[in-house]
Amino acid sequence: MPSEIPLYDIVIIGAGPVGLLLSVALSRWGYKVRHIDNRPVPTATGRADGIQPRSLEILKNMGLKRKVMAHDPARVFEVAFWDPAPGGKIVRTGTWASCPEFLDARYPFTALLHQGLIERVLIEDLEKNGTTVQRPWTITRFETNHKNAEYPVEVDLKNLDSNVTDTVRAKYLFSGEGARSFVREQLGVQIRHKDPISHVWGVMDGVVRTNFPDIKMKCTIHSDHGSIMVIPRENNMVRLYIQIASSTDPDFNPRKTATVEEVQAAAQKIFAPYYCDWDRVEWYSVYPIGQGIADKYTLDHRVFMGGDVCHTHSPKAGQGMNTAFHDAINFAWKMHLVESGFASRDVLSTYEVERKFIAETLLNFDNKYAALFSKRQPSASEVSDAHESGSKETKNEFVEMFKANCEFTSGFGVAYNGNIFNHSDDHRFQHPLIISGSPKIRPGRIMPPSNVTRVVDANVVHLENEIPFNGSFRMFVFAGLGQSPRPDGHQALADFARHLTAPNSFYTRFGYGDASRDIHHDSENPHSRFFSLALVFAAKRSEIEIADLPALFRDYAAKVYADDRKDVRVLESKAAAHAKVGLEGEEGAVVVVRPDGHVGIAVRLVEGRGTVEALEGYFRSFTARDGGLGGGADRVRSQL
Amino acid sequence: MPSEIPLYDIVIIGAGPVGLLLSVALSRWGYKVRHIDNRPVPTATGRADGIQPRSLEILKNMGLKRKVMAHDPARVFEVAFWDPAPGGKIVRTGTWASCPEFLDARYPFTALLHQGLIERVLIEDLEKNGTTVQRPWTITRFETNHKNAEYPVEVDLKNLDSNVTDTVRAKYLFSGEGARSFVREQLGVQIRHKDPISHVWGVMDGVVRTNFPDIKMKCTIHSDHGSIMVIPRENNMVRLYIQIASSTDPDFNPRKTATVEEVQAAAQKIFAPYYCDWDRVEWYSVYPIGQGIADKYTLDHRVFMGGDVCHTHSPKAGQGMNTAFHDAINFAWKMHLVESGFASRDVLSTYEVERKFIAETLLNFDNKYAALFSKRQPSASEVSDAHESGSKETKNEFVEMFKANCEFTSGFGVAYNGNIFNHSDDHRFQHPLIISGSPKIRPGRIMPPSNVTRVVDANVVHLENEIPFNGSFRMFVFAGLGQSPRPDGHQALADFARHLTAPNSFYTRFGYGDASRDIHHDSENPHSRFFSLALVFAAKRSEIEIADLPALFRDYAAKVYADDRKDVRVLESKAAAHAKVGLEGEEGAVVVVRPDGHVGIAVRLVEGRGTVEALEGYFRSFTARDGGLGGGADRVRSQL
Repeated sequence: MPSEIPLYDIVIIGAGPVGLLLSVALSRWGYKVRHIDNRPVPTATGRADGIQPRSLEILKNMGLKRKVMAHDPARVFEVAFWDPAPGGKIVRTGTWASCPEFLDARYPFTALLHQGLIERVLIEDLEKNGTTVQRPWTITRFETNHKNAEYPVEVDLKNLDSNVTDTVRAKYLFSGEGARSFVREQLGVQIRHKDPISHVWGVMDGVVRTNFPDIKMKCTIHSDHGSIMVIPRENNMVRLYIQIASSTDPDFNPRKTATVEEVQAAAQKIFAPYYCDWDRVEWYSVYPIGQGIADKYTLDHRVFMGGDVCHTHSPKAGQGMNTAFHDAINFAWKMHLVESGFASRDVLSTYEVERKFIAETLLNFDNKYAALFSKRQPSASEVSDAHESGSKETKNEFVEMFKANCEFTSGFGVAYNGNIFNHSDDHRFQHPLIISGSPKIRPGRIMPPSNVTRVVDANVVHLENEIPFNGSFRMFVFAGLGQSPRPDGHQALADFARHLTAPNSFYTRFGYGDASRDIHHDSENPHSRFFSLALVFAAKRSEIEIADLPALFRDYAAKVYADDRKDVRVLESKAAAHAKVGLEGEEGAVVVVRPDGHVGIAVRLVEGRGTVEALEGYFRSFTARDGGLGGGADRVRSQL
Repeated sequence: MPSEIPLYDIVIIGAGPVGLLLSVALSRWGYKVRHIDNRPVPTATGRADGIQPRSLEILKNMGLKRKVMAHDPARVFEVAFWDPAPGGKIVRTGTWASCPEFLDARYPFTALLHQGLIERVLIEDLEKNGTTVQRPWTITRFETNHKNAEYPVEVDLKNLDSNVTDTVRAKYLFSGEGARSFVREQLGVQIRHKDPISHVWGVMDGVVRTNFPDIKMKCTIHSDHGSIMVIPRENNMVRLYIQIASSTDPDFNPRKTATVEEVQAAAQKIFAPYYCDWDRVEWYSVYPIGQGIADKYTLDHRVFMGGDVCHTHSPKAGQGMNTAFHDAINFAWKMHLVESGFASRDVLSTYEVERKFIAETLLNFDNKYAALFSKRQPSASEVSDAHESGSKETKNEFVEMFKANCEFTSGFGVAYNGNIFNHSDDHRFQHPLIISGSPKIRPGRIMPPSNVTRVVDANVVHLENEIPFNGSFRMFVFAGLGQSPRPDGHQALADFARHLTAPNSFYTRFGYGDASRDIHHDSENPHSRFFSLALVFAAKRSEIEIADLPALFRDYAAKVYADDRKDVRVLESKAAAHAKVGLEGEEGAVVVVRPDGHVGIAVRLVEGRGTVEALEGYFRSFTARDGGLGGGADRVRSQL
């Protein structure tokens, strides 16, 4: 009897980073999630461990960073390069910032702690919102039947302990199963191997005693006895990555292994002349790594995949979990906007387009990086010779490769191409007020971080984090320099407020439509579940009176800011937050930021209805067609 | 049978801020603590709520700040002053930073959350270290019998639920009972009233809806209908303080009270023309406040008191809990140094000397502040007239009083006078290398905060927090500008290391005396429980090789720093941390910081044995006389 089948918004398979972060977001937004994992318990230790600077910003924006940092992760600010020295020794040939100053990162370091601690933070959060990860459960069958328009996906699940089975129906199925994926296999999606070379890696976490001076730094060590990567960890631990075999070896065996003692002995040889003794080993694993990327992330826009299911690569650049986080949030907000009636269903296709492009960039990078890592590097004396002849820079390819890719490995290279969300000259909607070609505010990239003073409580806050990852589009209204914060002195702002709240505007169409709603304590979404506004004046806090602002902004009282903080990156600017988005003149702008923090479009703030007109065109290109016009919108309103 | 009497290092009565923080410190350091409180459960809500900037630094130094901030306290950066306006209304006449920029505060705000949340953090910490607060227990008798040299204090305790009694012996008894103290009464210690005026206050925590624009700010409101203080709180709450009666009223009754509704109605009148409705009230209390200070904090140097037992005052300046924190840590490290055989017993007298002086300063301030708060202030039009005649500044005495006392109320005014710990020209030991009269590094005050780069891991860290509140004296060695970080280029540093580790130096005398001790992972106290070293070079991180340093500093590998970070307060300086302690020349210095973060002495770093000689004289003036010379020191060594 079909009516007895349990119904879910989504079934998520796998409770690694991608599955958990997706589950966290959707659970917070009220979706009914069935989440299973085939492991009996969460990760206890080891595995993925690097949270890149941009991922820390994502966690901050989700209110999860503090809980992760409470585990006191190691912080990597610099990487040291060690190369062969005469006599079979090693010598430090240089260091380099892991997130150099030219990247405007709020947290310019990588945080390192084991995956289990990160999972714990995410599991606690989703449990608070009513979702539990069921273990050990696996998926045994799934099928999409479009005849069932509302819950087209049927999924068979099985408890691996009790062998109890369960059949459920869902709107979506998401696989975050990891590299070995039942869902991907069933779909017949192929893994394409960028690089035919595969490697066997040994990884060991533990506490060492050593006189190697950089044991608390991230290091790449190339010696005549092999290569190793050193990564500091929480709790005084260190992680060593050591390559055990490569498919380029004459006798390559992908099942080659090594004991703890063998790896320790190999490491000791590489570390010479320094000693390296082990107090204890917390985790040790040997695993083959092949580079691969899935041809498709979805076939039918109902069954989706993400994380290691779609892309595998070497662990050396610390990208795995970070790419998974991006996959998760990218899918979460798009599914949310479709299911809540805001966006048309075809926006779901941008998930694969955006994320597969990044995975390909990652694999191209990893490809070259892994090859150079495995290659013996010139020894210090060779480099020194080269340096004297003025060509050092080209000699150590590995170091040059590392430096060139800092932006990407820090996560700030996640730059989506133009599409329906990321306005470009190819977008089907164009308007003269749209800002294009700005080097500071680039659709597809994140908005630069800046500090501002919140007017209501004089708190110094992160502007970019003032609107959390809540599923809404964020409209940052920069009032412009030399504009009075008084409404009678700022006609463009008054016009913007008037036209935005006009009865047929996109803002009103997707509003709650309920004038009696109590918005007193709803500072983020007073009018609409789909939009959050923030207003930034290039003025002193004491000059800004919220009571004098247009009614629109009075309802956003807690989101009005004074752009009055000094920023060392733009010390000469009168208003740092304005300068960081490229606004140095009198005119303001509205910067629309997607729910995941990436810029969608920026429009000049001018008198008249032009600004809202430009935004209207942008949103109309992907919002649901019946929004505000017929039964659909009414249905949405009554649901919210 | 005396042998059956349980023995403790200390019995602590009362689990408010002073008792808990003392208990946290002593439990961490391994003392056996009996801790009781007569309330059946910890504070659930309300009561003290303001953590001042300097107290946040103390919590940070103890590793407790993050857990407190996890409760998302409100943050007060500015205070708004509202004064009477014509027609019985109120108008904002100005705002002022609660911790202005001239104060070099790491956290320039007050954090506000209810006392129960803070207590919870402290209780969790002491439970981790084996101490439990027993409730509801009270003290019924105590007696100091010096014939029992080791455990001279006998205390009778009683469970208020079961009426079970217990007699214990302890080295110390500490009363943190609050204003009504059994211990103080039994000792016959009198409370002196600075100001004979007493007040009845109403205080109400809750969630309001209002159009008063500064409801998220700390405000002092003077109106023709009375005065009120507004303080934002965690969880969208606000606290209102309202004066209900004063002993200056003609019909004063210290037992006068008021209902919730009466206070709300009075507040509404003061807030006019703004409305103020209550969504809910979380806590409400009416209590009389008299200013008072105890004549003595101890009579016999065995039974001590702190917190509200010793000083009571109005809640308006938010000083109560903060003063209690300072009392607790001041007593903790002194008792520790005496009981561990480092300091002579007479240093305990400095507890009362230092803390009573601060309490007296507080009461003098509170006295004037409370009087001005209760006084009707000139209305805005009056002020405005005065302003036009150029004398506004002297007109609003309350605002001027507030501004003048920011340093004190932020906690940075805790400046102890010269004594055996705080070197001055009156100290019994003098030496030509002692730095005196520096405006930057002042014995009795805290060392200014600065950011430096830790050499081993390239982490950017807070220099002043690199040595936690661990009971040790902190010796910050600033190598000086233009000095090479190489040992062969820095004779003064090499000499310092050599003389400090000489067999008869204070450093060696109070060392572990065990060469086989495993110090590999002990970065804070490799040689002695009583000293922690940190070494700061005015150089780039990459120029500093720890392996090249004198052996002394190689054992402190994790405490070597590059003074290479820009600081906006000393932008023009070559080395910011050096500049902040007044070192702009080639010569370095050793800054000795007491375990509680206050500077003890600063000595110039010169070639030869002079630097260590000066430190030797300083420490010898308060260390235990038998240290290193006889059985005493041997006993200490074997204990450690």
